[in-house]
Amino acid sequence: MANEKKVEQITDMEVDFAQWFTDVCKKAELIDYSSIKGMFILRPYGYAIWENIQSIMDGMFKATGHENVYLPMLIPESLLQKEKDHVEGFAPECAWVTVGGSEKLEERLCIRPTSETLFCEHYKNIIHSHRDLPKLYNQWCSVLRWEKTSRPFLRHREFLWQEGHTMHATEDEAREETQRMLNVYADFMENTLAMPVVKGQKTDKEKFNGAEETYTVECMMHDKKALQAGTSHYFGDGFAKAFGIQFTGKDNQLHYPHQTSWGVSTRMIGGIIMTHGDNNGLVLPPKIAPIQVIVVPVATHKEGVIEAATALKDRLLAAGLRAKIDLSENSLGWKCAEYEMKGVPLRLEIGPRDIEAGQCVAVRRDNFEKTTVSLDTIEQTAKSMLEDVHHGLFAKAKKNLDDNTFAAATLEEAKQIQQTKGGFIKTMWCGEEACELKMKEVAGMSSRCVPFAQEHLGDVCPICGKPAKKMVYWGVAY
Amino acid sequence: MANEKKVEQITDMEVDFAQWFTDVCKKAELIDYSSIKGMFILRPYGYAIWENIQSIMDGMFKATGHENVYLPMLIPESLLQKEKDHVEGFAPECAWVTVGGSEKLEERLCIRPTSETLFCEHYKNIIHSHRDLPKLYNQWCSVLRWEKTSRPFLRHREFLWQEGHTMHATEDEAREETQRMLNVYADFMENTLAMPVVKGQKTDKEKFNGAEETYTVECMMHDKKALQAGTSHYFGDGFAKAFGIQFTGKDNQLHYPHQTSWGVSTRMIGGIIMTHGDNNGLVLPPKIAPIQVIVVPVATHKEGVIEAATALKDRLLAAGLRAKIDLSENSLGWKCAEYEMKGVPLRLEIGPRDIEAGQCVAVRRDNFEKTTVSLDTIEQTAKSMLEDVHHGLFAKAKKNLDDNTFAAATLEEAKQIQQTKGGFIKTMWCGEEACELKMKEVAGMSSRCVPFAQEHLGDVCPICGKPAKKMVYWGVAY
Repeated sequence: MANEKKVEQITDMEVDFAQWFTDVCKKAELIDYSSIKGMFILRPYGYAIWENIQSIMDGMFKATGHENVYLPMLIPESLLQKEKDHVEGFAPECAWVTVGGSEKLEERLCIRPTSETLFCEHYKNIIHSHRDLPKLYNQWCSVLRWEKTSRPFLRHREFLWQEGHTMHATEDEAREETQRMLNVYADFMENTLAMPVVKGQKTDKEKFNGAEETYTVECMMHDKKALQAGTSHYFGDGFAKAFGIQFTGKDNQLHYPHQTSWGVSTRMIGGIIMTHGDNNGLVLPPKIAPIQVIVVPVATHKEGVIEAATALKDRLLAAGLRAKIDLSENSLGWKCAEYEMKGVPLRLEIGPRDIEAGQCVAVRRDNFEKTTVSLDTIEQTAKSMLEDVHHGLFAKAKKNLDDNTFAAATLEEAKQIQQTKGGFIKTMWCGEEACELKMKEVAGMSSRCVPFAQEHLGDVCPICGKPAKKMVYWGVAY
Repeated sequence: MANEKKVEQITDMEVDFAQWFTDVCKKAELIDYSSIKGMFILRPYGYAIWENIQSIMDGMFKATGHENVYLPMLIPESLLQKEKDHVEGFAPECAWVTVGGSEKLEERLCIRPTSETLFCEHYKNIIHSHRDLPKLYNQWCSVLRWEKTSRPFLRHREFLWQEGHTMHATEDEAREETQRMLNVYADFMENTLAMPVVKGQKTDKEKFNGAEETYTVECMMHDKKALQAGTSHYFGDGFAKAFGIQFTGKDNQLHYPHQTSWGVSTRMIGGIIMTHGDNNGLVLPPKIAPIQVIVVPVATHKEGVIEAATALKDRLLAAGLRAKIDLSENSLGWKCAEYEMKGVPLRLEIGPRDIEAGQCVAVRRDNFEKTTVSLDTIEQTAKSMLEDVHHGLFAKAKKNLDDNTFAAATLEEAKQIQQTKGGFIKTMWCGEEACELKMKEVAGMSSRCVPFAQEHLGDVCPICGKPAKKMVYWGVAY
C-alpha cells in the first residue's frame, strides 16, 4: 500500500525533535499553514482537541462561579497606554489597525494581545458598590502577538485561548482567586491531559507585564525542555488605580478593587504532543481525544464482520464513548498506522474468529499492549482501559519529570547538567535578577519558577555567593 | 423600593420602538458599550444566550456531517482581491492592519469580514482527489465590518457568528447542501427560537457578493419590519476557478469543485428581542433562556420557606432544567419585575401556605398566566409549561406575520399599505432590478425574497407593467 509510507515519513524524535514535532502536526492533520507567516490553520482534528479542552475547562470555570463574556477585539492606543508596565511589555508585539473602510483612523487600534485594559474599561462602567463584587469573568477568544519567530501550537501570531479577569473587594479574596485558578489549571493538566506540573511563582523578571505576582504551572516535554502551560496573575489594585475603578464599601468609603487574570491557550496542544507523542505519531490523553476508540474490522469480506464491528462501535457510542469505525478499503496495516499517527488511545480489532469466540483484540496506544477481551462487557472494559491509558501516560511523563530534575550546588554544575542531560535544574537563589541573567548567559537557562514545594539545598546563591532566599527551578523553555 | 423603578424606566415600544429595544438591551444586561463606536460588549447574560444558541446549532451542524475548524483572522489584500465581485462588496467595509510590531507591513492585512477567500486558500492545499470531497467545514468566530451606523445586536462592527464553507464534487451536491443548511436554519429559528420564517431566494440585487444564488430566512419583527436571520449561498465554481482549486475525478480528469457558504450571527438575539419582547422587557424562548425557571420564595422570614424553595430549585436542576433561586433581600415585587425584564420564561413562587398545601404558583412570562400547580409532579409540569411558552410565543409571532402580510396589485397600493400598516407586501415582479429600485424609491421597501411558496397574484409586474415572472415579498428591513 502506497499509503503505508505515511508512518515512515515521520522524522525520529531522537534524530530531530523539532522536525518530529512539525511532522506530527502535519501528518496527524492538526495544522495547516496559511499565507501569513505565523498564522496557522487549526484543521478539524486539531480543533476537535481544542473543543474537548474548552468544554471540560469551561465546566471547571463555571463550577468555580465564573461567567463568560465577549469584549471587542480592538484596543484604542490610548487605552492600552493607561498602565505603564503593561503597554511597555505588549506594544512591541501589537498589530495595528490604521484604516477603517476607506478612512485613516484618528487613533490607531491594536488587535488585542490580551484584554486587561478592555476589561478594566468595562469594569469601570459596572462596578460601583461592594454589591457589584466580585466580578468573575472569563473570555474565550483569539489574540494576536506579532512574534518574529513561530511554531505550530507553541508560538502563533494569532492563537486561541481563554482569559479570566476578576475583580474583588479585598486583597485576600483576589489572592485566593489567583491560587484557586492556578489549582484548576494544575488539576486540568494532570487529571485531564496527563501532564504532571511543577507549581510555583515566577520571578519578577519573568512575570506578566503589569502584574504584581505571576504563578505558573510548568511541564517537562519529552526533550526535557520546559513548557509554561498556564499562568495566573495577581495585580493588586494597580490597574484599578490607573483606570479609576472604585467602589463604595460596606464602610461607605471609596475603595479600589483588587484584580486577577489567568490564561491558557492552544499551546497546551503543543504540550500534549511533546509530552506523550512517540515515533509512531501523536498519543492523545483519552479525556480530550476526538476519537477515544477506533474499531477496525479484520477480513471485511467475510460474512458478518462489518455488521459485528458496526454493532461494537454502536455499543461504545451508546455507552458515551467517542468511538468510530473505519470501513474504508485501506489495508489493516494502513489503518493501524493511521490511527496510531492520530494518537487514538484504544484500537479494537474484530475479525471472524473473534466474533465466533465473542471477543475482540484491544491495543493500547500508549504501550502497544495487545489483549484479547470479551465482547460481553466491552463497554466497561474499554472505559477501564482508557483510564489505564491515562494513568500510563501520566506515570511515564511523571517519570520523565522526576528522572530529569537535578539539584546543582554551583553555576558550573548547573551548566554541565544542562549540557549533558538537560531537564530542570534546581538551585538556591539570592533573589537578584543579575543572577538570572548570569544563569542565562552561562548555562542558557531561564528561571522557570520558585516552586511551592521548597527544599533547602544550601545557604548561598551558587551564582553570586550571597545568602540564598529561595530554591528556583531553571530550564530551557519553549 | 427604589429598585422597582427599573421597569418604569423602559420606554414603551408603542412610543419609540428603537428606544425600547436599546432599553431592553441595557436593562436586561445583555450589552454594554465600549469606547469604540459600533463595538459592543456581550455581558454574561447576553453571552449565555449566544452559548445556548451555539450549543444547539453546533449539534445540528455535526449531525449533518460538518466539522469545525479555525482559520486566521487576517486576510492579505491580494488574497481578498482574487474574486472580483467579492472584493468589490467587502473592501469598502474592511479594517486594515498596516503595522505589525514596530514595522510597516509590506502588504495590508484586512480583519476578516467573512472567510471565503481564506477557506479557498486552504482548500487549494487539501483538495486534490474526489476522495477529498466533500469538505464540510464550519467556523465559529468573530468578524469585522467597518459599518458607518451601528445598533446593539443588529449592526456591530465586530460580531460573533458561524460561517459554514463547503466544497463538493458536483453542482447537485452543492445545491443540496445550500438547501439543507437553509432548512437547518429555518428549523432552528422556528423550533428553537420560536421565530416563524419566510424561506426564499434573494434577488440578484440582494445576493451575497460573489455568490451565484443566495437563499434566506426572513422574520417579521414586532414593529413589522423584516430581519434577515440567516443566509445560505451557492457559489458554483467561481471561487474555485479564481483560486485554482481542482480535483481529479473518478473519470481521472481535472474538475473544479462546487462551493457553498452559510451563516448566522448574534443578530438572531436582536431578532429574539424584537419578536418576543414586550413592555416589561425581554421574553426569551425557553430553549435558549439562560435561566428557564426562576424560583422566588415568598415570606422568606417564615420557617421552612427558604429550605422548601431551595429543594424545589434543586429538583428542577436535577431534572435537567436551567433553574435558579433568588434568595436576595429584595422585595417580591422587585424580583418579579427583575426576572420579567430578563425574560425568564417561567416563575415559580412558593410561600408558607403553598408549602402546606404541597403546591406553588407558576407564572408564565409570555402571557402572565398564573396557575397553582402541585409540587408532586413539578418537574413534568415545569417542562410542559416551558413547552407551552414556546408554542405560545411561536403562535403569537406567527399571527403577527400572517396578519401583517398583504398582497398588493399596484405600486401605489404597496406604498399605501407600507405607510399605513407596514409588514410584508407581496406583489408579482418582472425580475428586473429597475423595478426593485423603483419600489425602494416610491415605497421605501427592498425585496426580502422570492418565497419558495409562490402564489399567482396576477400576470404583470405592478411596477413596470411587463409580464410577471415571480411573486416577491417586500419590506422595510433592519
